[in-house]
Amino acid sequence: MLKVVKIGGNVVDNSEKLDRFLQDFASLEGPKVLVHGGGKIATTIGKALGIETQMIGGRRVTDAETLKVVTMVYAGLINKTIVAKLRTAGCNAVGLCGADGGLIVSRRRNPKPVDYGFVGDPELKRFGTATAKTLIDAGYTLVVAPITVDGADGSLLNTNADTVARTMAVGLSGTFETELVYCFEKRGVLMDVDDDRSVIPEITPARFAQLRADGIVADGMLPKLENAFDAIEHGVRSVAICSADAVAEKGYGGTTLKAD
Amino acid sequence: MLKVVKIGGNVVDNSEKLDRFLQDFASLEGPKVLVHGGGKIATTIGKALGIETQMIGGRRVTDAETLKVVTMVYAGLINKTIVAKLRTAGCNAVGLCGADGGLIVSRRRNPKPVDYGFVGDPELKRFGTATAKTLIDAGYTLVVAPITVDGADGSLLNTNADTVARTMAVGLSGTFETELVYCFEKRGVLMDVDDDRSVIPEITPARFAQLRADGIVADGMLPKLENAFDAIEHGVRSVAICSADAVAEKGYGGTTLKAD
Repeated sequence: MLKVVKIGGNVVDNSEKLDRFLQDFASLEGPKVLVHGGGKIATTIGKALGIETQMIGGRRVTDAETLKVVTMVYAGLINKTIVAKLRTAGCNAVGLCGADGGLIVSRRRNPKPVDYGFVGDPELKRFGTATAKTLIDAGYTLVVAPITVDGADGSLLNTNADTVARTMAVGLSGTFETELVYCFEKRGVLMDVDDDRSVIPEITPARFAQLRADGIVADGMLPKLENAFDAIEHGVRSVAICSADAVAEKGYGGTTLKAD
Repeated sequence: MLKVVKIGGNVVDNSEKLDRFLQDFASLEGPKVLVHGGGKIATTIGKALGIETQMIGGRRVTDAETLKVVTMVYAGLINKTIVAKLRTAGCNAVGLCGADGGLIVSRRRNPKPVDYGFVGDPELKRFGTATAKTLIDAGYTLVVAPITVDGADGSLLNTNADTVARTMAVGLSGTFETELVYCFEKRGVLMDVDDDRSVIPEITPARFAQLRADGIVADGMLPKLENAFDAIEHGVRSVAICSADAVAEKGYGGTTLKAD
């Protein structure tokens, strides 16, 4: 089983948490891919460089200068720091962004009605299977930064890290049995959002329908689970939602979503 | 013949020059590797972030903050910009730094008598042949940033780009017939430094001894040629010294160094 694990800014920004996670990740057996998000470092550096963050409707606009900053920080600083730490932990890592070997080719988001700038959504049909397979078959662990490449004009594009992880997992599911693991702040999907011990261990589509009807899964968790089930429909064997510090535990101490 | 081509800051800093070079480089036949230097962007960004450049005896000191900046700029911004442009030019590029797959493992420079900080010199014996060969055999063009990894503690290290190019060429010469191409400001080694048309087309060790005795090769060109002949002694078939805008020309319109 190939694992695609995604960590977000809450892990990337905290060097103690990151070190602990990378030790755990390095200990996972079998082929694996790590997708990392950005974190606050990009915002801090952008501010220091005098680049103002433009927001439209709560979403960041990636102008040409911001694209340079996220490329530097995500594909350079964060990606290579993680690669170096994984190597020290005994994991033979290679860091890539979506441009490398055409790993993740995107379509720039339509500038109408709202132009978010250099932001792209991956095109699954153009997934770089050959590049991923070449390295995974040779025993390397891929570390993927959420920068992709525009299939139309070849420019770099800022891309949502959850979507990059989903693309890696779905794209690889034609070649490997694939499991997608989303690490986030909570231990999993909770019956009671205020009780960290109330993790629901397994959710099928039928259970999901019920949880949604009962209002137990709502707000931000709803699109997360919809995306996860969509990945399962497109070939991913299972999706786990867990905390980064539980990634070495059995079943990740979290919630596993399965087709049935 | 596998070509390892090195470009420096004068090309990286000038986007017109860079675009023209990358078109030419993409048109070169056979397996190839591009090693790029840093350029002024790192200094500009370091200054904007309030990091003061420390110099000792004309050499830059890489402290922890400077290391972050060069990692961002070299392995992130410059590396991925080049990869994206090469892909557009039809060249299937993968961008790496020395940490990726243990491609270039270095020894941190002795802090005595002068501590230059996070700076390393590659260890040829630990060259990551498997990583380079896996990708080159699969048809990829490697784009290598001059950031390497400390063989002792796994930290990232700033490394001279000429040395990285030499390490790639010598390291690969056990597997491929390898040619090293140094692009620099002049058209080649000149008989008369003020006459760009006075390129010496070929230099053997015997000719080198004479040129040196006659004072024609002197100053900065002396260590360049010594390093080049050292690469040849270690297995590289030939070393070309030329201008970046002549890389698609026969013999690169420059000087070729050969064992005999």
